[in-house]
Amino acid sequence: MINCESTALKFRFSSKDQVLQFELLDQTLLPHNEFWIQITNSTQLIECIQSLRVRGAPLIGIAAVFGLAQASLQTKSNEELKTIFKALYESRPTAVNLMNCLDRMKPLLSEPINSQMYVDKAVEIFHEDVRLCHSMSEYGSSLINDDDQIVTHCNTGGLATAGLGTALGAIIHAHKSGKKIHVYVDETRPLLQGGRLTAWELQKHKVPMTLITDNMAAHLMSLKKITKAFVGSDRIATNGDFANKIGTYSLAVNCHYHKIPFYVVAPSTTVDPLCSDGSQIHIELRKPNEVMGFKGHVGEVLWAPEGTLCYNPAFDVTPARLTSGWILETGVYYKKDVDQGIFKKRNQS
Amino acid sequence: MINCESTALKFRFSSKDQVLQFELLDQTLLPHNEFWIQITNSTQLIECIQSLRVRGAPLIGIAAVFGLAQASLQTKSNEELKTIFKALYESRPTAVNLMNCLDRMKPLLSEPINSQMYVDKAVEIFHEDVRLCHSMSEYGSSLINDDDQIVTHCNTGGLATAGLGTALGAIIHAHKSGKKIHVYVDETRPLLQGGRLTAWELQKHKVPMTLITDNMAAHLMSLKKITKAFVGSDRIATNGDFANKIGTYSLAVNCHYHKIPFYVVAPSTTVDPLCSDGSQIHIELRKPNEVMGFKGHVGEVLWAPEGTLCYNPAFDVTPARLTSGWILETGVYYKKDVDQGIFKKRNQS
Repeated sequence: MINCESTALKFRFSSKDQVLQFELLDQTLLPHNEFWIQITNSTQLIECIQSLRVRGAPLIGIAAVFGLAQASLQTKSNEELKTIFKALYESRPTAVNLMNCLDRMKPLLSEPINSQMYVDKAVEIFHEDVRLCHSMSEYGSSLINDDDQIVTHCNTGGLATAGLGTALGAIIHAHKSGKKIHVYVDETRPLLQGGRLTAWELQKHKVPMTLITDNMAAHLMSLKKITKAFVGSDRIATNGDFANKIGTYSLAVNCHYHKIPFYVVAPSTTVDPLCSDGSQIHIELRKPNEVMGFKGHVGEVLWAPEGTLCYNPAFDVTPARLTSGWILETGVYYKKDVDQGIFKKRNQS
Repeated sequence: MINCESTALKFRFSSKDQVLQFELLDQTLLPHNEFWIQITNSTQLIECIQSLRVRGAPLIGIAAVFGLAQASLQTKSNEELKTIFKALYESRPTAVNLMNCLDRMKPLLSEPINSQMYVDKAVEIFHEDVRLCHSMSEYGSSLINDDDQIVTHCNTGGLATAGLGTALGAIIHAHKSGKKIHVYVDETRPLLQGGRLTAWELQKHKVPMTLITDNMAAHLMSLKKITKAFVGSDRIATNGDFANKIGTYSLAVNCHYHKIPFYVVAPSTTVDPLCSDGSQIHIELRKPNEVMGFKGHVGEVLWAPEGTLCYNPAFDVTPARLTSGWILETGVYYKKDVDQGIFKKRNQS
């Protein structure tokens, strides 16, 4: 009996009777409703990925490999599996973990279908992410001191990974280690992953926090209320530039101006060996209605005038020069390590 | 017959039959409903000011003097007028125009009530603001060129003044002069004055625009899509530091980093002679529910978990060192002018 369970994903499989249960916590319904969606096919899973019911760079990759494992139990056609693989691969463009995780399943596609191997590989990737989170959290937490006031952006916790999280994992780990910290949570417009999800997670973990709108962080910095910033990433280029949720770059510029250390926390599965700098990262553009208002389980409001032209990039790129440190599962790296090719070496291993 | 009419305020008075009509456009219902509120007393007016039905530093001051003029028609008690004066004076703390405008009515309070003098003074202040806007718009527009891509924050147009506006007035004037410009409008969380009001005004004036969330401006700057920034102000200290809607400071830091000229446009009634630097400006703190969600005529949504601690300053302070130029009705001033005491001299005149 296989039983993988994290904050936002459950995968249970009995090889004896071939019964599979695959569930995702619908993150569009948080923080008010904790509703688990039964995933029965890849079309449904892709809808969940695209509508952000499941989100967070690491978790998208893990959900995708479980989706492929599920498909391998449902079909005898390698062609069908390849089609599903491709559809999952292209379901969202920016987070490279999706492609990296699926690429690890790819060799199986050229062999006769052995669903147990698909399941085993997906489970391996799940448990690996739990370990990566644990390790990142420890390295990240080592940079956090008593009385630190930390700003974070978007959601990078248990909802975004199979474990404790990346940037938020480090913060929660520091709190659990007894460090007296306070967290300022950027609400993260337009989809409010900070205001809905990070606030929910920090409340669950009883970490002292204050919610702010994204445009307030700089003002807090001017008042010397912020001592450090921790964010996650969806794709890291080999020169250290990285993509993360829109608004990360603005935060990085403000940290730079105020001389506040700005750390990115991500597993090495986020490093893209084919991407030499940030300009090569494809930024997903989303629909204007997300900017014109807010639609969620709590209701829908559209405050902008009808017909307003909007721009809605889901991510932005923060250059390496604005990044104080890169925290991976293998350690904390600095600009000199990146310049010496640490992210290039990693990819050759 | 007196007839003052602007985008968001109407004041009609017939001295012959002493009939007064005082109306404000309810800005909380924009952009979808254009509803005019009949103002009948100062308590109602103060509610309108505090709930932002009427807003914008210059317009708050003008609404207040019309409110006092109305009161002078309704009472024979100087004591009562003084009480109303004080209540209006304290209705919002940050925008100094409110205090500056009311201070100009103050001498009347120590004389026997002559309501015509109150009305005349209020009308004078109204028409003066129209002229100030016109002049600021011309000076501001002179700094705008063909192909400029301008970012602006909050709302500083006809809805915030008696005339064309301050920062937005300059932008609209440039467009009307035939300059080919594009405007990026910060939505301006939490109360979305950009997404609701500036988008509405620019649409009315047919100025090409794109709505963005506040955290996208820096990303656009990194893509070289923004060439200038124009913002308004609620209070200017004599050293050039100024308060404006929360998020202005973050935008200023980002403009500084990207070497983008950052202009503030405000009438000299915004200069506070008693305030020598930004640290002395009292920043209004508002209720947490504005950060936890959005409530408006289009509905109410509360996306943050119940009991979330929030921080909600309505304004922030941008230091003079991040400001490229101060555009007043008397001209464009630069750091050297401010350092030479231009804002101190003004107050002695």
